[in-house]
Amino acid sequence: MAQRFQTLPGFRDFYPAECAARNYVFDAWRRVARRYGFVEYEGPILEPTDLYRRKSGAEIVNQLFCFEDKGERDVSMRPELTPTLARMAAARQRDFKKPLRWFSIGQFFRYEKHQKGRGREFYQFNCDILGEESNAADAELMALSIDLMKEFGFGVEDFRIRVSDRNAWVCFAEQNGVDEEGVTTFLQIIDKMERTPEEKTEAALGEWNLSLESVKSFIESGAGASGELQEVLTNLSNRGLAEFVEVDLSIVRGLAYYTGPVFEVFDIGKGMRAVAGGGRYDQLVGLIGGVDMPACGFAMGDMVIMDLIRETEAPAEILEKEVAREQSIEVFVVQADPEKNAEVLQVVQSLRSSGRRVHFSFVDAKVGKQFQAAEQAGADFTVVVGSEYPEVGVKNLAERSEVRVSVDALVEELDRLAEG
Amino acid sequence: MAQRFQTLPGFRDFYPAECAARNYVFDAWRRVARRYGFVEYEGPILEPTDLYRRKSGAEIVNQLFCFEDKGERDVSMRPELTPTLARMAAARQRDFKKPLRWFSIGQFFRYEKHQKGRGREFYQFNCDILGEESNAADAELMALSIDLMKEFGFGVEDFRIRVSDRNAWVCFAEQNGVDEEGVTTFLQIIDKMERTPEEKTEAALGEWNLSLESVKSFIESGAGASGELQEVLTNLSNRGLAEFVEVDLSIVRGLAYYTGPVFEVFDIGKGMRAVAGGGRYDQLVGLIGGVDMPACGFAMGDMVIMDLIRETEAPAEILEKEVAREQSIEVFVVQADPEKNAEVLQVVQSLRSSGRRVHFSFVDAKVGKQFQAAEQAGADFTVVVGSEYPEVGVKNLAERSEVRVSVDALVEELDRLAEG
Repeated sequence: MAQRFQTLPGFRDFYPAECAARNYVFDAWRRVARRYGFVEYEGPILEPTDLYRRKSGAEIVNQLFCFEDKGERDVSMRPELTPTLARMAAARQRDFKKPLRWFSIGQFFRYEKHQKGRGREFYQFNCDILGEESNAADAELMALSIDLMKEFGFGVEDFRIRVSDRNAWVCFAEQNGVDEEGVTTFLQIIDKMERTPEEKTEAALGEWNLSLESVKSFIESGAGASGELQEVLTNLSNRGLAEFVEVDLSIVRGLAYYTGPVFEVFDIGKGMRAVAGGGRYDQLVGLIGGVDMPACGFAMGDMVIMDLIRETEAPAEILEKEVAREQSIEVFVVQADPEKNAEVLQVVQSLRSSGRRVHFSFVDAKVGKQFQAAEQAGADFTVVVGSEYPEVGVKNLAERSEVRVSVDALVEELDRLAEG
Repeated sequence: MAQRFQTLPGFRDFYPAECAARNYVFDAWRRVARRYGFVEYEGPILEPTDLYRRKSGAEIVNQLFCFEDKGERDVSMRPELTPTLARMAAARQRDFKKPLRWFSIGQFFRYEKHQKGRGREFYQFNCDILGEESNAADAELMALSIDLMKEFGFGVEDFRIRVSDRNAWVCFAEQNGVDEEGVTTFLQIIDKMERTPEEKTEAALGEWNLSLESVKSFIESGAGASGELQEVLTNLSNRGLAEFVEVDLSIVRGLAYYTGPVFEVFDIGKGMRAVAGGGRYDQLVGLIGGVDMPACGFAMGDMVIMDLIRETEAPAEILEKEVAREQSIEVFVVQADPEKNAEVLQVVQSLRSSGRRVHFSFVDAKVGKQFQAAEQAGADFTVVVGSEYPEVGVKNLAERSEVRVSVDALVEELDRLAEG
């Protein structure tokens, strides 16, 4: 017996039902982004490893699928899109009217422990505004992330977007004697605070003689919700989205490159990882592409959102319906007369030309078996081609009703039946 | 000045216009496949290298992006989908009603010389029928490939599908003293014949005392167009597709695993590589997955079809129109009164909720500048929010006509204007 091949750990096979679910998520991402006037782009899945070292430092390599290609290049399967976006935007910045509103749907790879909501491969929706320093752009992205959730059927009882401001923390750090080099470390402590034992955080903050108490009371005061962040909140409120928004200074996002407002989308009550997250990163395009360009953006992965959809009633119902619809056909053409194969093929082709999804049996089969195949394929209608051809029978499988029409009037009749 | 990063050789950046063109091709692939009742699936981009060695032999490794991952697995970025499909279909064959009609749209990687119509990375549409031995399945795939071309706007003057039969050649080989081990080599000689100097082919055939003359006259005789192939041709003719089809025994397709009818789609008059190709491969699912399952399939890459679309008048026009449409917005909301920012945001959100693609200016700008931005974004309409709010002005930018409506009637009015 031959060796059986298996999927690599952390990688997924998308059988038709899973692929339909994936496509449902992709379609919603694309639909909402387009409504916001964003245009789609895509970069290569393989990039020079240095692109990621430049952004994230040398340690990033430990999490990468990186290797030397046959041309002795040090290359990596991309772990994220932002460095590619920065490279692309900088390289052709003169060709596009600013601000750029760009989105992308693609696959990413990280060599890490396989666990719930995290694989070694995942899809991500990336959405960025480049060349706009106004925080109206930050608000636009937050509104888009809220509308994404609503598009999936989530309501105000299901999720919140927690907004914060890196600058509020940078000010707090400065005022409390954290020097410039220490700020990144300080922000990482804040980022990990919720998942870290209090003694450990307290000890880490001790380096600057800072107490956990003072950090906690800063978070509770919401003191950052002044100035820039307040404008963002007003903007979202004007859009009628205030009920989805919450100021939460404990959100700082670990990555070193954020420079302003940041946000994350969380479920309510299920305790999953963040569904989406992002913020302003005004320095990165300059760092990667050598062109100064203010920027903000966010990403949503496919794994947490899919778990959340499946575990929430209304969104799960919509998903299930769409998955069934994507996998079903509309018409099954039944051959009731062994002499009428040519006619069956003609009917099949003309129905497909009218845009319908059509099946038929590749081999001679009893009429009963063909009807069974029609039901299994989820057909709405059967069209029976028999000895009365060019007259054919049209049957609505759900209602068990049947009419007979001339084949020339078939497309029209199906239109009429589908409406009625 | 920072090091400038570049795309790896043979890899592509898809800026918005190129991404829109890519999406146009993907959408057509998906639309036609669904009309034929196919369902979409997807496999991992990274697979064990042995999966490709099993199918194609050890030499395949020279063309692969292969490496050892951090878990010391010998892995490869996939060069094709068929081995993954065979693995997936075999692993869960009991869960699906046969025949399976599966299609996929994904990216593939081959380390080879970068040249016109061939990169180190490309997308491919794969379409397969598994679990059906009748050649009605082969005909179904050929019809689908023809309808794909028609969907792009190609007519009978633009392309042909050339069909052939591996079995006809296997018979010819046997009758002419080529032993079983020699058949693969023999078929490779036939496959390369068109691109090889005649002396060289003659010399290669000499091994079996075969003359180039006898091979050529076999091709001209179309002797293979009997039996199975004749049934396929009749089937396509019954569908009204005969004019697109041509028997051409010089098509054998290089790959060793084909076992029956094979076909390729070619342009007429432009001399490009094959646009699509495939055939029957009844042994492969058994070889890879240990489960016997007859199968046939074909693939179309994105690069040759895109070149062909761009170089053919009618298809190029459709593409251009779709690319422009995908990148343009419908409504630009203009703020004519500095006090009305909240109202602008409300109008923007309500228009987006109605499904429209909407832009507005993130910062205060003169009305004239906002109109300019609207034109540049390809907007059909502007909605002007000024001091008369809740009355707003609606302008059709192409016709330069304008009406005033209450904001509550705005969505309805835009529906009316878009229709009329």
